[in-house]
Amino acid sequence: MKKFINEKDDFIIDSLKGFARAHEDSVDLSLDPIFLTRKEINPKKVLLISGGGSGHEPLHTGFIGKGMLDVACPGHVFTSPTPDQMIAAIEHCQPESGVLFIVKNYSGDVMNFEMASEMIDFDHQTILTNDDAAVINSSYTTGRRGVAGTVIVEKVVGSLAELGGNLIACKNLGDKVNLHSSSIGVALSSCTIPAAGKPTFDIGNDEIEFGVGIHGEPGRKREKIKQAHLIVNDMVSAILNDFEEKSLNLRDSNGILLLVNGFAGTPLSELYLIYNAVAEKLKEKKIHISRSMVGNYTTSLDMAGASITICLLDDEIKKHWDSPVNTPNLRWDNENV
Amino acid sequence: MKKFINEKDDFIIDSLKGFARAHEDSVDLSLDPIFLTRKEINPKKVLLISGGGSGHEPLHTGFIGKGMLDVACPGHVFTSPTPDQMIAAIEHCQPESGVLFIVKNYSGDVMNFEMASEMIDFDHQTILTNDDAAVINSSYTTGRRGVAGTVIVEKVVGSLAELGGNLIACKNLGDKVNLHSSSIGVALSSCTIPAAGKPTFDIGNDEIEFGVGIHGEPGRKREKIKQAHLIVNDMVSAILNDFEEKSLNLRDSNGILLLVNGFAGTPLSELYLIYNAVAEKLKEKKIHISRSMVGNYTTSLDMAGASITICLLDDEIKKHWDSPVNTPNLRWDNENV
Repeated sequence: MKKFINEKDDFIIDSLKGFARAHEDSVDLSLDPIFLTRKEINPKKVLLISGGGSGHEPLHTGFIGKGMLDVACPGHVFTSPTPDQMIAAIEHCQPESGVLFIVKNYSGDVMNFEMASEMIDFDHQTILTNDDAAVINSSYTTGRRGVAGTVIVEKVVGSLAELGGNLIACKNLGDKVNLHSSSIGVALSSCTIPAAGKPTFDIGNDEIEFGVGIHGEPGRKREKIKQAHLIVNDMVSAILNDFEEKSLNLRDSNGILLLVNGFAGTPLSELYLIYNAVAEKLKEKKIHISRSMVGNYTTSLDMAGASITICLLDDEIKKHWDSPVNTPNLRWDNENV
Repeated sequence: MKKFINEKDDFIIDSLKGFARAHEDSVDLSLDPIFLTRKEINPKKVLLISGGGSGHEPLHTGFIGKGMLDVACPGHVFTSPTPDQMIAAIEHCQPESGVLFIVKNYSGDVMNFEMASEMIDFDHQTILTNDDAAVINSSYTTGRRGVAGTVIVEKVVGSLAELGGNLIACKNLGDKVNLHSSSIGVALSSCTIPAAGKPTFDIGNDEIEFGVGIHGEPGRKREKIKQAHLIVNDMVSAILNDFEEKSLNLRDSNGILLLVNGFAGTPLSELYLIYNAVAEKLKEKKIHISRSMVGNYTTSLDMAGASITICLLDDEIKKHWDSPVNTPNLRWDNENV
């Protein structure tokens, strides 16, 4: 294993300390228990809190800030945070308009966020993201996995909460964005968990894992690598089938948001090459891309690979996608620049 | 070699097409010859043009836009663009206030940009970046190499040009930022050029290349991997020595800009861990970090590794660093969000 680390056990805390230092103007880090919050808490708005195992950065810590999350609770690598983290963060923020948990659908996360929600005296709701079209159940889940679509949920709901939307409105919008989002990933290499010191899975020099999860969980099939546009064809087909099963029509005039997401070990040049192949395929299918995002947003430690997420837009989702956001890893203000 | 590619020879063009499609609202791609420009050209301002071999994305294409570059001319992977690209781009833009070339100091780039500058009828100046403190000469250069400090030059000069600064003022500011910037990189793995199909260099499972170049060129030494904070100590020492040789005092009250840059194969969590170690070291030295940037900005295909850049700030550099910027890969508007 080759990584920039000090002691294996200190990997997450060393990294979080660096994150908090680099963004000290906007983010606070609490160490016991571990949670991160915006520096300026607005107790009047719905409190948006997410979290999960570490190793998927910038998800979720990098999305704390105006127009997105209020709180992130990172666990150890690929391990759920514990309820005391969420509870301490909420007590710290003293929200007056309720708490909205955004949780990726993994058994550990679901259990720990549920326990936290039962132990607080604040109004609360939970959005469970499960946008991964690859498999129905997996080694970490009952049901579909929550993957890169979670970023879109956090951005869109974050906007509504910032504008004063109430708890139920935020919960409903998040559920809609999740329903409207479908993803699939492909791995070219395994990831390596620092504490394990060796790759999570073996994969041949000419093989890819189609439908891989963001913890390196098995996907639909192991197959020989082929040209990118052929891999992309399979990925897009899987997503289109998923939308068909959901009875959602991607040819809506609002178009779609296309997110090409890297797992951290794949360079931007390849992600744009993938984007081009997806765009070609969607053009054939007369599906209009009206918003785009390309980069490493939901990663899997050092895994080489990428995922595609399509989110079907409507006026409401589009409006909240476009609204200003100011976080360490997602930042724009379309009106003023 | 495992990459998302179609035909090896089409790698760059497929990737650029994806880039242009993903950012079609703000960037135009010309194919014959290849260059990229802002969609809206302002002929009144100094035209900022950069370029170089591909494989360092988002440098330079990702920095086209308001407050930064006007034009980028990408060559093949790790190969300089040719003069016809720069000339066609400039003819397309018809600048009325002169042309400023921002060129990383590699023999091929220097030669080709020089040829282009001799063949145009517009006023022009060149900023040659050479911020790499690792080695004096290397396999691709006479003199020091231009690396991640180039991003800072492009941002700062881009701001002045946007605000109406004239050609000489922009050139002088760029030279100052370059002088004020010093970088050093470490590789954990080689990169793999698609056309070559195999790693550029061999490196043992327990080795790092200290002072590596962004094309995988040799650095100062091959050594055994050690804890990140020890690697960082060596990196920071190299940079501090460089500033001492330049007779620049990093303890200035304006502080420094710290850029922790990934080479593309190293996850954000490790980059933040490096940031933490650098911040500790600079605190000991009583050097104040007043601006920070962590991420993949000047990459080396799929190389695992990272570089540190320190830029000594003054009022002028800080003002132009903070000003609004709106490009695909660098975007902020500190005043309005």
